[in-house]
Amino acid sequence: MTDLDPAQEPAIPAALAEARASIDNLDAALVHLLAERFKITRRVGRIKADAGLPPADPAREVEQVTRLRQLAVESELDPEFAEKFITFIVREVVRHHEQIRGADWVAG
Amino acid sequence: MTDLDPAQEPAIPAALAEARASIDNLDAALVHLLAERFKITRRVGRIKADAGLPPADPAREVEQVTRLRQLAVESELDPEFAEKFITFIVREVVRHHEQIRGADWVAG
Repeated sequence: MTDLDPAQEPAIPAALAEARASIDNLDAALVHLLAERFKITRRVGRIKADAGLPPADPAREVEQVTRLRQLAVESELDPEFAEKFITFIVREVVRHHEQIRGADWVAG
Repeated sequence: MTDLDPAQEPAIPAALAEARASIDNLDAALVHLLAERFKITRRVGRIKADAGLPPADPAREVEQVTRLRQLAVESELDPEFAEKFITFIVREVVRHHEQIRGADWVAG
């Protein structure tokens, strides 16, 4: 008969598998929220292109960084990472906006 | 009396403001999900450090990329961006795991 002492044989694979299942759920949620976010920023891109506004808006970006750093602190996320994250997203959005403008978009 | 023709004077600031309010809501949700994700990966980092497992797990990362690219397609997000996103997150996680290992972590 096997006599496993839980203290000596921690269920590492089980604990890892459980954590990874939660990570996978959160990642699915993150991807779906990002999909929705880019649907909205595509609309913003068309509005900006129609109005002749520049793709980037530095003042808006400063506001976003400040707000998200604060939300990060409140939710115990590293605010430096939150800033890297929003910068990463905004860089992609501006690239989309430049493509829209480059394609000489005409509103339908 | 001002006689604005809506076709000549589109409510661009209002449409932009509305879109940005939705973006801000999604960003708050994203930050909170990321905060939760890093709480779980910190636990994973401790489990790995205790077990002497390496911080990175290339096979797991391939699975994550494949799955998230598929979820991206289903939700109309650019799968290339989904891959860049998960790579960005995993790079941060591995950095945390290396810090945990570097700090010669002992489980409490």
